[in-house]
Amino acid sequence: MESLRFVLPQSEIPTHWYNVVADMPNAPMPPLGPDGKPATPEQMSAIFPMAILEQEMSAERWIPIPQPVREIYRLWRPSPLIRAARLEEMLGTPARIYYKNESVSPAGSHKPNTAIAQAYYNKQAGIKRITTETGAGQWGCSMALAGQMFGIDVRVYMVKVSYNQKPYRRSMMQTWGAEVFASPSEMTQTGRAALAADANNQGSLGLAISEAVEEAASRADTNYALGSVLNHVALHQTVIGLEAKKQFEMAGDWPDVIFAPCGGGSSFAGIAFPFVADNAAGGRNGKLVQLVAVEPASCPSLTKGQYAYDFGDSSGFTPLMKMFTLGHDFMPPGIHAGGLRYHGASPLVSQLYHEGLIEAIAVPQLATFEAGVMFAHAEGLIPAPESCHAIRGGIDEALRCKATGEARTILINVTGHGYFDMGSYDRYFAGELEDFEYPEAAIKESLTHLPHVG
Amino acid sequence: MESLRFVLPQSEIPTHWYNVVADMPNAPMPPLGPDGKPATPEQMSAIFPMAILEQEMSAERWIPIPQPVREIYRLWRPSPLIRAARLEEMLGTPARIYYKNESVSPAGSHKPNTAIAQAYYNKQAGIKRITTETGAGQWGCSMALAGQMFGIDVRVYMVKVSYNQKPYRRSMMQTWGAEVFASPSEMTQTGRAALAADANNQGSLGLAISEAVEEAASRADTNYALGSVLNHVALHQTVIGLEAKKQFEMAGDWPDVIFAPCGGGSSFAGIAFPFVADNAAGGRNGKLVQLVAVEPASCPSLTKGQYAYDFGDSSGFTPLMKMFTLGHDFMPPGIHAGGLRYHGASPLVSQLYHEGLIEAIAVPQLATFEAGVMFAHAEGLIPAPESCHAIRGGIDEALRCKATGEARTILINVTGHGYFDMGSYDRYFAGELEDFEYPEAAIKESLTHLPHVG
Repeated sequence: MESLRFVLPQSEIPTHWYNVVADMPNAPMPPLGPDGKPATPEQMSAIFPMAILEQEMSAERWIPIPQPVREIYRLWRPSPLIRAARLEEMLGTPARIYYKNESVSPAGSHKPNTAIAQAYYNKQAGIKRITTETGAGQWGCSMALAGQMFGIDVRVYMVKVSYNQKPYRRSMMQTWGAEVFASPSEMTQTGRAALAADANNQGSLGLAISEAVEEAASRADTNYALGSVLNHVALHQTVIGLEAKKQFEMAGDWPDVIFAPCGGGSSFAGIAFPFVADNAAGGRNGKLVQLVAVEPASCPSLTKGQYAYDFGDSSGFTPLMKMFTLGHDFMPPGIHAGGLRYHGASPLVSQLYHEGLIEAIAVPQLATFEAGVMFAHAEGLIPAPESCHAIRGGIDEALRCKATGEARTILINVTGHGYFDMGSYDRYFAGELEDFEYPEAAIKESLTHLPHVG
Repeated sequence: MESLRFVLPQSEIPTHWYNVVADMPNAPMPPLGPDGKPATPEQMSAIFPMAILEQEMSAERWIPIPQPVREIYRLWRPSPLIRAARLEEMLGTPARIYYKNESVSPAGSHKPNTAIAQAYYNKQAGIKRITTETGAGQWGCSMALAGQMFGIDVRVYMVKVSYNQKPYRRSMMQTWGAEVFASPSEMTQTGRAALAADANNQGSLGLAISEAVEEAASRADTNYALGSVLNHVALHQTVIGLEAKKQFEMAGDWPDVIFAPCGGGSSFAGIAFPFVADNAAGGRNGKLVQLVAVEPASCPSLTKGQYAYDFGDSSGFTPLMKMFTLGHDFMPPGIHAGGLRYHGASPLVSQLYHEGLIEAIAVPQLATFEAGVMFAHAEGLIPAPESCHAIRGGIDEALRCKATGEARTILINVTGHGYFDMGSYDRYFAGELEDFEYPEAAIKESLTHLPHVG
């Protein structure tokens, strides 16, 4: 019986992360401080440990993964690469479809790949507590898990509307020992001010970030952690692609095209960046891998945004980053792929896109759920709504291959399971979900608020 | 870096199930029909396909696993055997602790091991539809998944109180294409009668079974499927223990003692029965493996029940089975390990226990959640409340080893994840869970209702 699952031994957990900066045609555009000059590590050292800031700025191709981080990765890594043979059969395509299954982590997504690393470096720096924010809860869960693994206290500011609507994600964080506060909270000046203005404030990701950063900046024993966008986060996620390359060697195959969901960009970076290295070297046996970021049509930063310096948060507290952005105060429609509702894309992903080294497409919400249900029917696993974006991309490519007769090899990054998103599937089946109109006017408006640089 | 995860290649998915009947000192006590005589396959053929009934009665040691079943098993099997090194360290024990992780199936538990097989045999028999019941939803999800894999329609009668309280389990079943009805329903005579008597009837597992069986018995194209208790279910679950034996060989180790949760008995049977074979042959290198079923203190069929012929369901519709029972109308307290709230134990498990070949212990609810949280802190994975029973057994044994200095090898069957049980963890943290008193009077009463046989 042919093996459909390609599993590496734990000795093959990567020993180094891959830094795509080393293979970019141009150096990355630096983040800028409030004065318009490149931000220095020192400016950010109040909330990040120096080891993380060094990675943020590094141009080294290979960065060693500390042994204690690899030892925690062992709890679920290497994650499996799976040939989706039943999906191929359902589609009747000559294409070969594989997926990397990152849902196997205890937190249910790829996010712990960086949370574990960030907890480790903070522990090394003597930090006792990490603050962070979470919307739907994926990132908060990952940070809670990571804090428990290294004995660091974790405080999560969870957007109040989610805190009340998604109690089970909150319970998970608490099971791993984290404190979870509904944001706005009474814990910070920012929170108290918001509550004073409106006692019924339901919170926003921007506000929760502000609370987490305020607490981290005001306490010497406390740092802050972010789950996407930044270079070090993309770096930590490259274990996904590095493993996938070895697994394709096991399978005696090699991808022609890779699809990954893209919000902040960390899951796309994680699977795609290690293949950028091959492409930069002329491809494997002269064959370049097509790298496709799949974003929601209602929040299309790469495909419809502007490549400009903008804030990372909606309130304008962070350094300015050069990225494809819809404007930092653009409020995306309430799609169910909460992890993709971000106004910009990682600066590294953005620069690679700007330089034509990667591609991007945007897909509407209903088509993503349709793809997720097809996947669940064929492969069993019920994917997270974020992952459904990549699956849609992969299925459409497989159907194109069916029409042309091409036997391409397709790789999909299935970043998480949908166990905590069944309410969204429910609404999809009930016909209650909609495809939002492309929010052209709102984007046009928010782009007029881009900060002036220079 | 030492590997903690022992993963077999897919070519090592077992080719045969192991039938413990072949190694039992005495033939199994037969089920009895309403006339007090051994029930015949023909009597049950209205609701089960003949291939299943042959397995139910078989004394063959090895029964081939059909290739199409193995091909579906490939979606998640072989499941990993994992060395719980961080748990050992947390406990400071010289014992070595391993767990078999059955939570990796798409439905999140060991239940698909038999659901897939049952769907296959029904498909082979030309059956178009399977009816079943579900309480908390684990079994209903597994049957929905299995039906989808083989193109069989699945109708699940879900106890109404769970239907309303656990909408996400319902959503999962629907995602895999099953129809789900709150029971009592308007679909059957049984359901209509119950609703006529009490329009607000919240349902019970006994009632849901009756609805599912009624529909299956009344339609030629429809059969019924059961998720535990019966011999063929135990048989299908033996892939767990068969894989574990190969994985221990990989690890260069061998269990001294195995703990599994025990309600109806299928997860215990699945991991333990293949080791009964070794014990029957004098043990491996003369070493016998201790096999421990862990049941809830509030529903202690093996440890406090009577070994007698009783009905499998609360309404008395099924054939009589010889088993350890608390009385078929015993209503267990509302513990959160819903999968273990059953009045009896599988006839095969019961007979092995009666003959002294396996052991049983009972643990109180709060201690099981405490164990589950320790496990989540050490290993990441948040276990299902049912699995927490086995984990409690394993942790207590590891602590005993710590006291005595014994370096025993402990194997725990982690049968499922707790992602759909976070509400129960919530209540545990809030101090709202309780240890129920041992329901001595209720058990004494229900045991007076045992049917008269012979």
